[in-house]
Amino acid sequence: MDMEAKDYVKVPAPELKLFAAKLLEKYHVPPSHAEIVSDILVAADLRGVESHGMARLYDYYLFRLEKGYMNPKPNLSMKKNFGATFLLDGDNGLGHVACHMAMEKCIELAKKYGVGMGGVKNSNHFGIAGYYSMMALQEGMIGICVSNSQPLVMPTYAKKRLLGTNPISLAFPAGESRPFVLDMATSVVPKGKIDVHKRKELTVPREWGADNLGLPTDDPGKILEGGGLFPLGGPAETAGYKGYGLSAAVDILSGVLTGSSFLAGVLNATQRPEPCGVGHFVTAMHVDAFMDLEEFKGRMDQFVEELRTAPLAEGCDHIYIAGEKEFARWEENMKEGVPVHKKVWTQLLGLCSQHGFTPPETVSS
Amino acid sequence: MDMEAKDYVKVPAPELKLFAAKLLEKYHVPPSHAEIVSDILVAADLRGVESHGMARLYDYYLFRLEKGYMNPKPNLSMKKNFGATFLLDGDNGLGHVACHMAMEKCIELAKKYGVGMGGVKNSNHFGIAGYYSMMALQEGMIGICVSNSQPLVMPTYAKKRLLGTNPISLAFPAGESRPFVLDMATSVVPKGKIDVHKRKELTVPREWGADNLGLPTDDPGKILEGGGLFPLGGPAETAGYKGYGLSAAVDILSGVLTGSSFLAGVLNATQRPEPCGVGHFVTAMHVDAFMDLEEFKGRMDQFVEELRTAPLAEGCDHIYIAGEKEFARWEENMKEGVPVHKKVWTQLLGLCSQHGFTPPETVSS
Repeated sequence: MDMEAKDYVKVPAPELKLFAAKLLEKYHVPPSHAEIVSDILVAADLRGVESHGMARLYDYYLFRLEKGYMNPKPNLSMKKNFGATFLLDGDNGLGHVACHMAMEKCIELAKKYGVGMGGVKNSNHFGIAGYYSMMALQEGMIGICVSNSQPLVMPTYAKKRLLGTNPISLAFPAGESRPFVLDMATSVVPKGKIDVHKRKELTVPREWGADNLGLPTDDPGKILEGGGLFPLGGPAETAGYKGYGLSAAVDILSGVLTGSSFLAGVLNATQRPEPCGVGHFVTAMHVDAFMDLEEFKGRMDQFVEELRTAPLAEGCDHIYIAGEKEFARWEENMKEGVPVHKKVWTQLLGLCSQHGFTPPETVSS
Repeated sequence: MDMEAKDYVKVPAPELKLFAAKLLEKYHVPPSHAEIVSDILVAADLRGVESHGMARLYDYYLFRLEKGYMNPKPNLSMKKNFGATFLLDGDNGLGHVACHMAMEKCIELAKKYGVGMGGVKNSNHFGIAGYYSMMALQEGMIGICVSNSQPLVMPTYAKKRLLGTNPISLAFPAGESRPFVLDMATSVVPKGKIDVHKRKELTVPREWGADNLGLPTDDPGKILEGGGLFPLGGPAETAGYKGYGLSAAVDILSGVLTGSSFLAGVLNATQRPEPCGVGHFVTAMHVDAFMDLEEFKGRMDQFVEELRTAPLAEGCDHIYIAGEKEFARWEENMKEGVPVHKKVWTQLLGLCSQHGFTPPETVSS
């Protein structure tokens, strides 16, 4: 969606969280689960990843719960647990709950073994990958999270969408500086960015996606209708096969290795009654197992400082560190309220009246 | 280098290996270490990664050993060993020996804990990352290897080379199909590809690199002289910040976390007497900890089959799986001999006569 102030209401984060949790409970999600999911959804909006926050609450989650496509009370069970590793069955519940539990288990294992690593199968869309990798930070750990997702990306030289935008997130603690938090889709851009360009009748760079023949195009309509996104790197000439390789590796870890679905087997959350079959893979690493945490944090600060003070390219005024923009947005939104698109807000207000409860006040409407 | 048959001699792989090992021993590398290094060097040439094989034997390794810049008999010592994790000190020896030992340790730990993970500090250039990730395959494991390297890549919005082409490799076993082996630099292209274009007086795509102002250029000369490579994705518009983020994450794992050098602190192997300060980070994961190995292999075959049989993009005749081209090259080179560029061969023959031993016969010269 476009970010124009007039199209948004702003809601204080704590109220928005309570509101989302209350709604989830109306769809039979247990309070402890609803609290986790709402925290993750609002974290996405706080960080400025609007596409993964409240905008999806109904379409991706409540709708599927309502229809019985997704299990509101999953029996999350350990299928394997060997040494520092495990496999968790998400029982077709909310992806957030399963992946949150998996990362907690990783952290527990990392305390004992230096590293903890686990897969999640039979899960669903889980919001932003960065939330789970960042869970490790407060424990003095490094967090890693990857997940597969519905096919939107064409492998190099193919004209069929077979790979998801399969995100990769790594989070590293730092000292004076903000943590380094990489949270990226393995496509050049997310589908939402193509949508925006189409709505505004703009062309897109030919490295973003392909038409229905698998050829680069600058027409966002052709990418959306019958075409697909390019993996990171774009077409083969600019090394799109590397993004394809990374995305495939994410799918193997999340889908093949966990026993979940993979490639075209991962289903779209908004269209089909069958379980989506999403899989996740998470890791926590105890910094202290490798280096004294305080020393590591000091070295991270040096690392960030060296990047930040590098000579600027012509016409540029700032070198960014992974996660920096999102932390700035977080702070702003914590202070001024979380922007929710009016279309989304109207949808949510409708649910409020349907379920007979009062929505939170917006900051200034 | 350009791949034109007339510029190459071919040497049978076993003889080439013995030859490289013999040369390394002349520079006081112990026989057991020389065997490891020569196997890794020849593996690079066998897989068609010419830039990381015999072409570097003198410039990157023998030269530094000769000058006393690198330690031929390192005392490889475990600095930390906690649960399933460890930190190894490479003692400024050959990177191959240290990383090989680290991956062996990971495999041993993964047998016990499902996963083994370790860092290497005070190391040197180690050849191809894919060699180490592939070590896990024969044990029914998944291997991961990353390393930092001398700065060649400009972070997004900077005009200084601060990041290496920091490779990422992941290797997954399969059944009937070849293993899936991703082995990629986190830059769009390696520096060698820019060299070739300059020599041939060709322009390059503007996504490959920047000039000395940090701006995209199609002139390979400007990239080489004062400019730098773009991270995977190219400039910001085509999501180069993702490649920058991945490369930085590799540097944090390999350099910051291990206590090795990072960013501009990693030195060029061919120019400076000081230790290069390269760091590596490796992981082995026991497939059986997550899923029965045979089942996993069958699922990998399905995964590969689904990619391979996808509808082809217009004008394309084959969808590749990561590592496929390299396995084909390996087979060809095992049969017909390993191509060594005549310039490199001449250099090596010179060393033979200097040290008074007979070089191997070439296949057909």
